[in-house]
Amino acid sequence: MSTYAAPLNDMRFLMNEIADLKEILGFPAFSELDADTIDAILEEAAKFAAEQIDPINIIGDRQNSPKWDNGVVTVSPEYKKVYKLFCENGWHSMPGNPEFGGQGLPNLVNFAVNEMWRSASIAFALCPMLTMGAVHAIEHHASDEIKQKYLPKMVDGTWGGTMNLTEPQAGSDLTAIRTKAKPNPKGDGTYLISGTKIFITWGEHDMAENLIHLVLARLPNSDPGLKGISLFVVPKFLVNDDGSLGARNDLICSAIEHKLGIKGSATAVMSYGDHEGAIGWLVGKEGSGIAYMFTMMNHARIHVGLEGIAVAERAYQHALTYARERIQGPIIGDEDSKKNPKPILFHPDVRRLLMDMKSRVEALRAVGYFTAGNMDIAQNASDPAARKKAQSYVELLTPVVKGWSTESSIDITSEGIQVHGGTGFIEETGAAQYMRDSRITAIYEGTTAIQANDYIGRKTAREVNKETGEAGITARTLYKEIAVFADALAKDAKLGDIGKNLQEAARALIETTEWAIKTYGPQPQVASAGSVPYLKLGGIVIGGWLLAKSAQIAQKKIDAGDSNPYYKGKIATTRYYARHWLVQADAVAREIIEGGESVLGLDEPLF
Amino acid sequence: MSTYAAPLNDMRFLMNEIADLKEILGFPAFSELDADTIDAILEEAAKFAAEQIDPINIIGDRQNSPKWDNGVVTVSPEYKKVYKLFCENGWHSMPGNPEFGGQGLPNLVNFAVNEMWRSASIAFALCPMLTMGAVHAIEHHASDEIKQKYLPKMVDGTWGGTMNLTEPQAGSDLTAIRTKAKPNPKGDGTYLISGTKIFITWGEHDMAENLIHLVLARLPNSDPGLKGISLFVVPKFLVNDDGSLGARNDLICSAIEHKLGIKGSATAVMSYGDHEGAIGWLVGKEGSGIAYMFTMMNHARIHVGLEGIAVAERAYQHALTYARERIQGPIIGDEDSKKNPKPILFHPDVRRLLMDMKSRVEALRAVGYFTAGNMDIAQNASDPAARKKAQSYVELLTPVVKGWSTESSIDITSEGIQVHGGTGFIEETGAAQYMRDSRITAIYEGTTAIQANDYIGRKTAREVNKETGEAGITARTLYKEIAVFADALAKDAKLGDIGKNLQEAARALIETTEWAIKTYGPQPQVASAGSVPYLKLGGIVIGGWLLAKSAQIAQKKIDAGDSNPYYKGKIATTRYYARHWLVQADAVAREIIEGGESVLGLDEPLF
Repeated sequence: MSTYAAPLNDMRFLMNEIADLKEILGFPAFSELDADTIDAILEEAAKFAAEQIDPINIIGDRQNSPKWDNGVVTVSPEYKKVYKLFCENGWHSMPGNPEFGGQGLPNLVNFAVNEMWRSASIAFALCPMLTMGAVHAIEHHASDEIKQKYLPKMVDGTWGGTMNLTEPQAGSDLTAIRTKAKPNPKGDGTYLISGTKIFITWGEHDMAENLIHLVLARLPNSDPGLKGISLFVVPKFLVNDDGSLGARNDLICSAIEHKLGIKGSATAVMSYGDHEGAIGWLVGKEGSGIAYMFTMMNHARIHVGLEGIAVAERAYQHALTYARERIQGPIIGDEDSKKNPKPILFHPDVRRLLMDMKSRVEALRAVGYFTAGNMDIAQNASDPAARKKAQSYVELLTPVVKGWSTESSIDITSEGIQVHGGTGFIEETGAAQYMRDSRITAIYEGTTAIQANDYIGRKTAREVNKETGEAGITARTLYKEIAVFADALAKDAKLGDIGKNLQEAARALIETTEWAIKTYGPQPQVASAGSVPYLKLGGIVIGGWLLAKSAQIAQKKIDAGDSNPYYKGKIATTRYYARHWLVQADAVAREIIEGGESVLGLDEPLF
Repeated sequence: MSTYAAPLNDMRFLMNEIADLKEILGFPAFSELDADTIDAILEEAAKFAAEQIDPINIIGDRQNSPKWDNGVVTVSPEYKKVYKLFCENGWHSMPGNPEFGGQGLPNLVNFAVNEMWRSASIAFALCPMLTMGAVHAIEHHASDEIKQKYLPKMVDGTWGGTMNLTEPQAGSDLTAIRTKAKPNPKGDGTYLISGTKIFITWGEHDMAENLIHLVLARLPNSDPGLKGISLFVVPKFLVNDDGSLGARNDLICSAIEHKLGIKGSATAVMSYGDHEGAIGWLVGKEGSGIAYMFTMMNHARIHVGLEGIAVAERAYQHALTYARERIQGPIIGDEDSKKNPKPILFHPDVRRLLMDMKSRVEALRAVGYFTAGNMDIAQNASDPAARKKAQSYVELLTPVVKGWSTESSIDITSEGIQVHGGTGFIEETGAAQYMRDSRITAIYEGTTAIQANDYIGRKTAREVNKETGEAGITARTLYKEIAVFADALAKDAKLGDIGKNLQEAARALIETTEWAIKTYGPQPQVASAGSVPYLKLGGIVIGGWLLAKSAQIAQKKIDAGDSNPYYKGKIATTRYYARHWLVQADAVAREIIEGGESVLGLDEPLF
């Protein structure tokens, strides 16, 4: 078995060289922080992830998963202990607003630290992630009274938070929501909520003293569409004015699901208002529930993308450890290995699998950290133009980080199993869990199809400048930036080969983007049929760009005499990626442009 | 939940139009068979698979998996009942030699029927599959005495058979086998076996009265390499001369594994000779164990490939059923769907997923059935040249059927989950099981890397004509056949577009094959680093060729006035495949040719 070791080299490199940590630390909001403090945080987080969270991952999955009994969900003592420590050590409050007890760190730093929690255990890390999502929504949209009442205890983890969107008939389509809210006949300004919500992550558990549910529901006589949906705060235990816990609210966890993965987390069926109605408080304005959820959702999408990155990294480490230890057969083309056996790491196909895993993880991570850094710039830069550009990149890249990282993670974790051979299929080995855990990431917080339609549609073809009528400005700007970079790199004496692969790939992305902008209006089904491949194409090229930038920086360090082997490694993984992933761009572009019609070639009853 | 329906249309089409069933039925060995009988067998098998086997798939997986207690493995009553029926109805003996009570059907027919068993439940179908593998080895290599003693009861399923190769230190590398055999001091010609074998599929269970283990072990003072390994028949209960069961042999199942999938089958750790030694009988000659196992293994590899095809088909059917029933949101570009809701089948990305699943399954199946048909020709044709050519195709295609079908099945079953959205992650839905079950197929009976090295090495670069010195003759012959077909099809008025995609792809395969032949000797690591992509390339192109042939035949039927919608469907899936898979050939070729060196770019300690 392997132990998790946070990839601090790569994290620091990306934060400093690709995501402008220095610029971010110069913003007034972060005036109390410096690079040394950040470094100390990363080191401590790495220790906590490795020593506390990583060992309980298997416990939640196969030894002592959350148990449901008559509405009560009990987690393992180990989960409870680590959750308590996590809160006590201040990790829970780290991403929070200082106004409510948080530490107000840059998104970029939270991103790196959160990667560690999720590499160690997606299931465990979902609990603080969901709570912070709820915090985010309350902070931005609820009244001061609600904020003061709930946020301090949610930020420090004493209370948990959940998001209640899905219902049996309302999955990707939230217009189908039926949960009802009606003004409390007592006239005290509260509402009575009733209905069933499903797939509520950590919807019930005994690690936190109270759970604050955010629930989407419909008020009487409201619009039947999305505009009729409002957001409510519905606590498990009502909270007295002095902050103490009052009566149990009329809500219950009526079951938890048997899932393929993330078994350490309880996925709850929540029943609201089986009796008198669950008491809730309206967040913000009536009918704005979907908009409010989307503030949280966009944030959550990037963080689910990060789950993909994190679990892929963990699977890579696990496979690498095994490949270093396991000896099996002589190595082809290596006579010496017949006498002096070498581990399977040296078999060419195991090297291919590990290179593929490593280079893809690094590409995914680069796009993730670049996006997280842009979130800080968008929120804090003094120059409005810089803020606007950064925000436009965040919006464009959010579906890529979510969709591409998660889809890739399924494949990378499967490669991790393959490195183990037969042992990988045995659950005790641990490799299979990463694949099982990864599988949900491409589904929740919007399936890949939803990310892809957001990417090709709202973020590209439908991103129209109202004054000029021009569409896809952000996409065109970014991809031009990539093409210009590639043209320059193609002339580089040492990295020109990588530059040429990137040039070709950028050309394919630009061509496909122009096609998408042209096609989306008149032939929406054809464009939509190519949306998931288009998301993949975007990921491949943007990831390749940031890897190539990294390789260029690494080469400069080497040329300046830096002997850190990390730099040599970065160039090697980039070259692998260029030859195995960037070369695919053209074929993916053809799939989209030439293949859209053929997707629609079968209809019922021919399927 | 869906019910399995055997894809009889596609099976019949492939058997008749692609795999020459008519020619095969003309061979003297099958003189008692006719097309109507075959058809009746297919219909009955489809019923048995749907009504008996399919419903127990979930029972073995999640409700009542085999239980181990002190060496005894108990399966569910449902498994027992179906196994009994399976034997009684003659399905177990179907593939067997008539000399031992089998029905002597063509491989091609067995292949179709076996696809049905495996679509319905890989875990259940593994039991007869392993028994028939053992029958195969005994039939071809053991003495008449052993054959007469064991085969009749193995062929009819009264007794089961197993293959014991793997040991903790000997997985892919069988040279590391340590299990010992020594001549019985009693001097009765038997041997005493001792050692531990792992990953023994259906190594212990209570569905059959006796289990006949085939065990690889080393005799004293034998060659330390592969040539020192012999094969032994080691029955669980000794068999008396009158065929009745005697004493329990000194072997025990010491544990069963907790696996990611195929949980309905018991994967046993087998301990031989903990006391006086397990009594075994030598099969054939000393030191020929590996060669004998390989007769069985080649057969088993094609059948594991068939598992991949079968589970992918089942996942497709399951996803299609859900997509037809589930209503969720209006369809983009379809105004009417806002008023008259349509199932998710009509969302472009769901159509893409289903098209991808269907077209790939049909491509995999085409290659599988083509290979199975060639097995019959190789064994039965009167013309030696025809036999030789067919056998050379079988040998070339075996690693493709195994490696490509199984790798694809992991991805296709994952697509099946995606069609279900969040529901797909819940085990009760059943979609996740197909992905879990499929994952082992790319590992057992030789991992994909082993198949790929066989394909690029022994079957291509190292297939040297001793007289002419020419390498890769079979590969060159087949790919030229494909290129010639593509050139002709490219001129077709209706299917020329598919022909052009195939032309390009065939060119890429031919170019890469020439590179492989040139590179394998001087740069074995570089060639080997590209072996798995090369296997994928072979699969894509050979699958595309057989689909294109199918589309051509379908078009002729349509032109002749046949209104069977199956033909229209075949052309549509082929066109989708051409635009989404054949277009990738060039990129995969570049990965192999331009990317080999980059795979080897990282070495320890840089990983």
